[in-house]
Amino acid sequence: MADKLSAEILQPVRGSRDFFGEEKNRRDYVVELLKEKFKSFGFEPLETPSMERLEVLSSKFAGGEEILKETFKVTNQGGRELGLRYDLTVPLCRYIASNTRIPMPFKRFAIGPVWRDGPLKTGRFREFVQCDVDTVGAASFLADAELLALASEIMEKLFGKNFIIKINNRKILDGILEFSGVDEGIRKKAILELDKLAKIGPNGVKQGLETIGIDSAKIKVVMDLANADATESKTFSKLEKNLTRGVGLEGILEIRQVLGFAGEMNCKNLEFDPSLARGLNYYTSTIFEVYLKDSEIKSSLAAGGRYDDLIGKFAGVPEKIPAVGISFGLDVICECLRDKKTGLWAKRKSAIVFLAIKDDQKVLKYALEIAAKLRGSGKINCLFDLNGRSVSKNLEFASKKGIEFAIIVGIREFEEMKVTIKELATGKESTLAIEDALRKFE
Amino acid sequence: MADKLSAEILQPVRGSRDFFGEEKNRRDYVVELLKEKFKSFGFEPLETPSMERLEVLSSKFAGGEEILKETFKVTNQGGRELGLRYDLTVPLCRYIASNTRIPMPFKRFAIGPVWRDGPLKTGRFREFVQCDVDTVGAASFLADAELLALASEIMEKLFGKNFIIKINNRKILDGILEFSGVDEGIRKKAILELDKLAKIGPNGVKQGLETIGIDSAKIKVVMDLANADATESKTFSKLEKNLTRGVGLEGILEIRQVLGFAGEMNCKNLEFDPSLARGLNYYTSTIFEVYLKDSEIKSSLAAGGRYDDLIGKFAGVPEKIPAVGISFGLDVICECLRDKKTGLWAKRKSAIVFLAIKDDQKVLKYALEIAAKLRGSGKINCLFDLNGRSVSKNLEFASKKGIEFAIIVGIREFEEMKVTIKELATGKESTLAIEDALRKFE
Repeated sequence: MADKLSAEILQPVRGSRDFFGEEKNRRDYVVELLKEKFKSFGFEPLETPSMERLEVLSSKFAGGEEILKETFKVTNQGGRELGLRYDLTVPLCRYIASNTRIPMPFKRFAIGPVWRDGPLKTGRFREFVQCDVDTVGAASFLADAELLALASEIMEKLFGKNFIIKINNRKILDGILEFSGVDEGIRKKAILELDKLAKIGPNGVKQGLETIGIDSAKIKVVMDLANADATESKTFSKLEKNLTRGVGLEGILEIRQVLGFAGEMNCKNLEFDPSLARGLNYYTSTIFEVYLKDSEIKSSLAAGGRYDDLIGKFAGVPEKIPAVGISFGLDVICECLRDKKTGLWAKRKSAIVFLAIKDDQKVLKYALEIAAKLRGSGKINCLFDLNGRSVSKNLEFASKKGIEFAIIVGIREFEEMKVTIKELATGKESTLAIEDALRKFE
Repeated sequence: MADKLSAEILQPVRGSRDFFGEEKNRRDYVVELLKEKFKSFGFEPLETPSMERLEVLSSKFAGGEEILKETFKVTNQGGRELGLRYDLTVPLCRYIASNTRIPMPFKRFAIGPVWRDGPLKTGRFREFVQCDVDTVGAASFLADAELLALASEIMEKLFGKNFIIKINNRKILDGILEFSGVDEGIRKKAILELDKLAKIGPNGVKQGLETIGIDSAKIKVVMDLANADATESKTFSKLEKNLTRGVGLEGILEIRQVLGFAGEMNCKNLEFDPSLARGLNYYTSTIFEVYLKDSEIKSSLAAGGRYDDLIGKFAGVPEKIPAVGISFGLDVICECLRDKKTGLWAKRKSAIVFLAIKDDQKVLKYALEIAAKLRGSGKINCLFDLNGRSVSKNLEFASKKGIEFAIIVGIREFEEMKVTIKELATGKESTLAIEDALRKFE
């Protein structure tokens, strides 16, 4: 064993991070806000263990081959085969499958780390937090609308009006491709191409569709129906005229219901986008993604949809267990919040209390009382000089730490039963009673 | 891959747990309270990754052989040697060692899971949460006193006056054994025996001391000085008369300072206990443990002490880096809170809104507005009937879920712009305006 570890070894493991101070407070603020809103909508918290049996993680209806390759395997003394969870959906499925008498609908949220041993790119980590909200056991589109209203409330609280929620229905996409005569065998590929619209524009999508073997006449119909060329906001009108039966019509009727309910629930900035595809794996109906409107950050802040097949299959029951969920991205939300232009987060103020005179027991006692009052107020984070430093050293320390106020206590303050507050940004000082000082921190 | 997983496999991995609903809310309440108080005392949050390099976890100054055996090893695609952290102290040491320009004192808290692959007993888990608060870089006993005042505030908030903080100093224990003439070679063993006092009583301790080879004359002196036979509260008087030099005197002077500062910081229920030993590994001075006074639960709820050697050695620097810390046990605190006699936790109320009449768009719209108002109030967790169930089915569901209020909306309520509230525990119903209903949830 080495006596001293090298600087490289002391860094966080690749793909993981240390969060300290203001950065961590910002993350906690977002998590607390999410929890508060999730709960107000009647979702209840579920915490499951970090590790799951490999048998569960590799179950036929879990994440699939690709993600299993990226699963961190854990070895232990008992020789059990375990892995770190790669999402919060598999633990949800396990929980429901093992609690067969759970009252339905089951509305739960889960916020916690997941681990994926994948390639590292910007914004991709091997340990990251997922914030999932799911309603299980409700076929009604009221459940989809609730999630949209929830997302709207959260986004408004964090970013004002500067957000957009894009919505579509997987059945509409299927209907468009069916109507356009695209072969069933390449429809999934075609959906993947359409999904790129926002990134590569209509011409890029057309090229993509050509590459997978769709002829230009069909491409024209697809682009037209998906309203993919339009710069104005997308409407149903063309779709309604053409998707008059089968899966396409189903999709239109479903999304109409969701939009209606969501509006009544006061969901804002909801926009239909028939080109939205949102992956392929398990969504069966409604799909949605949440973005900032005016921001350099183009990734979605939250996304989700309805998946009526997955949980029943996982639980091995013959009947369907309908479900709809949304997942919020903690990292991207915090990234957006860090931008002062868009983020509405304000950290709690902080102060350091210290003595202008040392070796006087009465002054020390008085200063400790002041600190206790500040701490008890619940309005401010209060440090106390622990190292008996000089006034100037204390001010230097406070500036380094980004502390806003210095509270100086000396003989004069003690005798007058007052404190001297120095606002560090301006250097402005004033001597006042502690009760008046406390009012400064509201 | 099996199509259906067995009931056994669907249970949480041995030694880990699922937490749902009220139980999880109680845990979150404690964590939020701890955070709030930690911050008010000027501690800042640090979150480090779940995994650390095995080289870090097995460093000479980390947890030692025993704990390394209980470390979950992680394998991955890159062939790096990783392990799940077994405590939050090693990550703290790593963070300080890798951030050499950090302003001191460094006051941080960390709340997160740790993993130990140890034997399973009651109250012992393989994944559990630690809540650590440490002040690094302050030799002053103000720092020790701050942690005691912090513990006192937290305990009072959770359990009223029903707690006790036991305090001692490792140097006093050393001084007692030195004064009694106990050979240096068996002093650590003797401390372990003394540590059992609360559990096995004075006679048990005497037997234990005999077993490790201390003669009865010396045992008498030890028991007398440690005040171990006394049933009244322990005092310094005998110790002060006898420990008049060396390490024992140092201990007495140190604890006098801590007690003085803690009193001035309004720390309550602090009691000197010269038999308190608190393990052996790295404490160098002050040690303390927090208990409920009147409870069936005999384990400590929090504990800690000063460890001035560890961090400097870990960081491989020649100078000492003084540190003092306290760790709160989330599981045992929640266990105590669950007991309604001692715990002061009250969960937020919840309500379910549903329709007494179906298929009326106007009534539905009105009910959705009611739900939005309840949710927006921040005072209540509000569910909405998603499955179009009858009144009686809704009431049955609500009772199963422990929901307190049913809010029934029908034609009459819509026309009068009111709601009917039914208190489920009493069955009492009243029809009133939503604003008046909201006041019920304050």
